[in-house]
Amino acid sequence: MKMLALDTSSIVATVAILDEDKLVGEYILNHKKTHSQKLMPMIEDILKSCELTPKDIDVFAVALGPGSFTGLRIGLATIKAMAQALEKPVIGVSTLEALTYNLPYAKELVCPILDAQRDLVYTGLYQWQQGEFIKVMEEEVVTIEALLENLKTRGEKVIFLGDALEKFRGVILQELKENAIIPPAIVRMPRASSVAELASRRRRAGNLQKASEVLPIYMRKSQAENQWEERMNKGK
Amino acid sequence: MKMLALDTSSIVATVAILDEDKLVGEYILNHKKTHSQKLMPMIEDILKSCELTPKDIDVFAVALGPGSFTGLRIGLATIKAMAQALEKPVIGVSTLEALTYNLPYAKELVCPILDAQRDLVYTGLYQWQQGEFIKVMEEEVVTIEALLENLKTRGEKVIFLGDALEKFRGVILQELKENAIIPPAIVRMPRASSVAELASRRRRAGNLQKASEVLPIYMRKSQAENQWEERMNKGK
Repeated sequence: MKMLALDTSSIVATVAILDEDKLVGEYILNHKKTHSQKLMPMIEDILKSCELTPKDIDVFAVALGPGSFTGLRIGLATIKAMAQALEKPVIGVSTLEALTYNLPYAKELVCPILDAQRDLVYTGLYQWQQGEFIKVMEEEVVTIEALLENLKTRGEKVIFLGDALEKFRGVILQELKENAIIPPAIVRMPRASSVAELASRRRRAGNLQKASEVLPIYMRKSQAENQWEERMNKGK
Repeated sequence: MKMLALDTSSIVATVAILDEDKLVGEYILNHKKTHSQKLMPMIEDILKSCELTPKDIDVFAVALGPGSFTGLRIGLATIKAMAQALEKPVIGVSTLEALTYNLPYAKELVCPILDAQRDLVYTGLYQWQQGEFIKVMEEEVVTIEALLENLKTRGEKVIFLGDALEKFRGVILQELKENAIIPPAIVRMPRASSVAELASRRRRAGNLQKASEVLPIYMRKSQAENQWEERMNKGK
């Protein structure tokens, strides 16, 4: 059972191939966001290096978001096109939850934060328990202040991950002090292998979808949609 | 400060570029061992994708072993050649210790086991403590039976990593029962990003070497050396 997984929900473009109990290959690029140019060559490259063709892939996995609207659309379009052409199922997972699988066995709470523009973050809170991450708090889009207020009342140590970490590092450390843990760079950003790991768990639970059924998790409206609505309301 | 790191001590060929607080890129291939064919194209590919040239690299990092003798020689020769040509320093780290950095923040003990042929493993034992892995047991080459006997007397939960895991999975579970943890495939094998993370810590501690000073950690003699010595002793 070979799975091809990808995540394009942030500046990072990442592709991995998982074969049952073996990570066959993984490619991560965190250098300028040009997913439209980079993604297909990366997929071609990793398949070729592993002596595989798209036909050898049994199931496709993708990070559904939340995250960059353009990034998500490119990733989903790519996965859906391949899955539909080859008549293979797709497994979509939350970008936030997939990120936590960069840190299996973590003792502390894990809190991914993704940039949702202005002072908003897409976030969730997870705890590793008996071999899997358990949701401690529903995924949502909130201001960084509201999130930190919430975490402060918990009074527990929290490991932060995600692309909003750099932007809010100062306020996180200021508010949570020694309860805030900033991990090494190597685990902070999306890895397609983590998407594949979470998707494998979903697959074992029977959560397969047709390519046509897979939808992104946007969690909020795009700037363009907001502006459109504002303009429409003004016209009333 | 840009670091190029690689690990070729097992069947996995892996290259990463770390720039201070950012993992710029990583490539992992776990498909047939042809490091001599794969390694340089992988390095070229990742540098090109990140719009870098070898001259942009400030420090080179490499997993010194223990591991596959041929793999280590290819990895070291490559790193030493680049570092010497560009007059840049090298940081060599233990393959075993680098592997543990696939699991930062782990609550349990972490025990990498690498295939040392017959029923021998290269191994060590680590515990995450206050932001780093602490050596609980010196790295050594022992029989799997001796290692499991030792771990049994500790009576603590242990996460196993490394390429000898598949071979010895049965006996590990049989001997340590619920104290043995077999993690997901995505964290079991070498990642050049983990080599880079450990090397960054060594760099901050001032552990830089000249290319000419870097030596592999073989930990035991090769099969060829054993046979040679046997033949010499017979001749006496």
